[in-house]
Amino acid sequence: MDDLVPPNVARCVPYQPGKPLSELAREYGVVDAVKLASNENPLGPSPKVVAALQAALSELHFYPDGAAYDLRHDLARHHGVPMSEVVLGNGSNELIDLVVRTFATRDDHAVFGHPSFVCYPMSCTAAGVPFSAVPLKGNLAWDADALLAAVEPRTKLLFIANPNNPTGAHMGAADLERVLRALPERVIAVLDEAYVEFADAPDFASALTMRGLRERLLILRTFSKAYGIAGLRVGYAIGPAHVVDFLHRVRAPFNVSSLGQVGARAALQDPDHVARYVALNARERARVGAALRELGLAVAPSQANFLLVDFARPGREVYEALLRLGVIVRAMPAPIDTWLRITLGTEPQNDRLIAAVREVLDANA
Amino acid sequence: MDDLVPPNVARCVPYQPGKPLSELAREYGVVDAVKLASNENPLGPSPKVVAALQAALSELHFYPDGAAYDLRHDLARHHGVPMSEVVLGNGSNELIDLVVRTFATRDDHAVFGHPSFVCYPMSCTAAGVPFSAVPLKGNLAWDADALLAAVEPRTKLLFIANPNNPTGAHMGAADLERVLRALPERVIAVLDEAYVEFADAPDFASALTMRGLRERLLILRTFSKAYGIAGLRVGYAIGPAHVVDFLHRVRAPFNVSSLGQVGARAALQDPDHVARYVALNARERARVGAALRELGLAVAPSQANFLLVDFARPGREVYEALLRLGVIVRAMPAPIDTWLRITLGTEPQNDRLIAAVREVLDANA
Repeated sequence: MDDLVPPNVARCVPYQPGKPLSELAREYGVVDAVKLASNENPLGPSPKVVAALQAALSELHFYPDGAAYDLRHDLARHHGVPMSEVVLGNGSNELIDLVVRTFATRDDHAVFGHPSFVCYPMSCTAAGVPFSAVPLKGNLAWDADALLAAVEPRTKLLFIANPNNPTGAHMGAADLERVLRALPERVIAVLDEAYVEFADAPDFASALTMRGLRERLLILRTFSKAYGIAGLRVGYAIGPAHVVDFLHRVRAPFNVSSLGQVGARAALQDPDHVARYVALNARERARVGAALRELGLAVAPSQANFLLVDFARPGREVYEALLRLGVIVRAMPAPIDTWLRITLGTEPQNDRLIAAVREVLDANA
Repeated sequence: MDDLVPPNVARCVPYQPGKPLSELAREYGVVDAVKLASNENPLGPSPKVVAALQAALSELHFYPDGAAYDLRHDLARHHGVPMSEVVLGNGSNELIDLVVRTFATRDDHAVFGHPSFVCYPMSCTAAGVPFSAVPLKGNLAWDADALLAAVEPRTKLLFIANPNNPTGAHMGAADLERVLRALPERVIAVLDEAYVEFADAPDFASALTMRGLRERLLILRTFSKAYGIAGLRVGYAIGPAHVVDFLHRVRAPFNVSSLGQVGARAALQDPDHVARYVALNARERARVGAALRELGLAVAPSQANFLLVDFARPGREVYEALLRLGVIVRAMPAPIDTWLRITLGTEPQNDRLIAAVREVLDANA
């Protein structure tokens, strides 16, 4: 009986998340560790979020509002779009999966970068959708022409993470505009802007400013990064109402929890909390990048809340060595398996990271 | 351009949830309403759940534990199974969808009852999996022979909601055992036991007691009904490790929120709260059923926390009339569109329901 799953599902491999602190404690006996592995907001959730959640705990026997009226209302106002153009997900991660399942089949095709967010190939593989993973320039920088060249007649989806995870690179506004104009009408361009709040390059622009360029454009956002509530699982997509409508039909009726909806509303109402983190991140991105370069390491230019750093030897070894020093970062698969992705934390956390890296390098000198 | 979605997705219709109290207030100006529409625990969440959540609010910037180690550990101990046999979902609803996507394609086929839980046809339609919806006896009672007769060579999934939603009927242990034995080896039997805690018929048995009868058996459970935390979205499946493994590969990495994991653990640790509700439900199921029958209405035998009641005229009209009296119940589609599904609440809530039904019937006498 080897007919349990279709061949594409048999090829699915489990996602490897950043190691949780609890797991490090359980497996290595390391307490007092710092987790710089999942691009989380090191300042924690806004106090306004915590207060709003506290007030909602007694109502948990009720199902969430399946239409998420209040949160979608607030998001629509926040972005100046109609509510019919907003759909929520259990994290933007669910929306990636939902977009693949709603708009593509085994007869279609998807295009995305490589290295880029691993959930694109994972969702396509699970849904049996063929795909082309287009190499980035030097594995690090977007190549708009190569993306366009990979589009075939059967291509239905193009995913662009902007800024990109795990490289931190952004696609400049001119390239992005060119891609959105050049794509065949059939293709849905999916701009995954999970890290958009951290981008400050002069030539960066959100695809929200380019919605007039093509009809089939979906923009994904998340509350898991700058907004600091990854634990609550809330993301959203903005797109044309008739496109968003199909995501509503295919999504599970109660895909975002009550507390997710309450927490996200409260987070939206505390822009200062986000601004504080974004400012900290910009300072630390420059400082930590300089410190690591000074140690002789190559650091990829980043528009996000993490740095991709080349240790010029198997990254897995460095990862393990840092783990033993109580610093959790993220090892990378080929072709960037000598690099580690390091989330920027608070100043003390980053100081500890720099000290740990120095210790590991010294031990191998 | 009519190629936006595949034909099966074009056929998807949005799920119609029970009307939230907030929506009734917004649309009808009715406050002080009682919601008996979504089979929620009327006693609210356990105080232990609320306390546990309060302690977890400051950690929401972290992603949930993707492996959900602690909750899966507790569930495995609770049921006396290995952790490798447990997988969590964003509600058991997500697991239904996940089971369809993981194990079936457009070349396979699914079987389930009708009327039964609407998410089975919805998930199959979304995934393009053909299905047979097998009529229940008199639209109310399970027909084990008819289910077996609907199984084809290409059948991969059989869903049985036991007790059934929205009829409240259970499939007795002898019939269930017969079905599990007779099914071809290829078919995965999915026993959806969302309402299992409320079943007290002498011939009821959970499929957890029948795992020896066939390898391909998945049992779905939820924290949304008896455990009273529908707002947190936590369900789980128990099955053979190699079957569960594929659900882990296809699910999103962080499909259950941090607070969902914390809340479900705490809920498991308060069995008295569940027992209190189950006892209340059994008393009220008998009392409310008798009162409605006394008003001349047919009431289907129920092993769940709701009653299906025949008003012998368009249920939608009665539903609207009850809505105006501040009582939210659930209208049903054909072939049971003269019936309403009414969740059993607390005694005062049920008294209000009975009074409202009497008022509606008197107005139409």
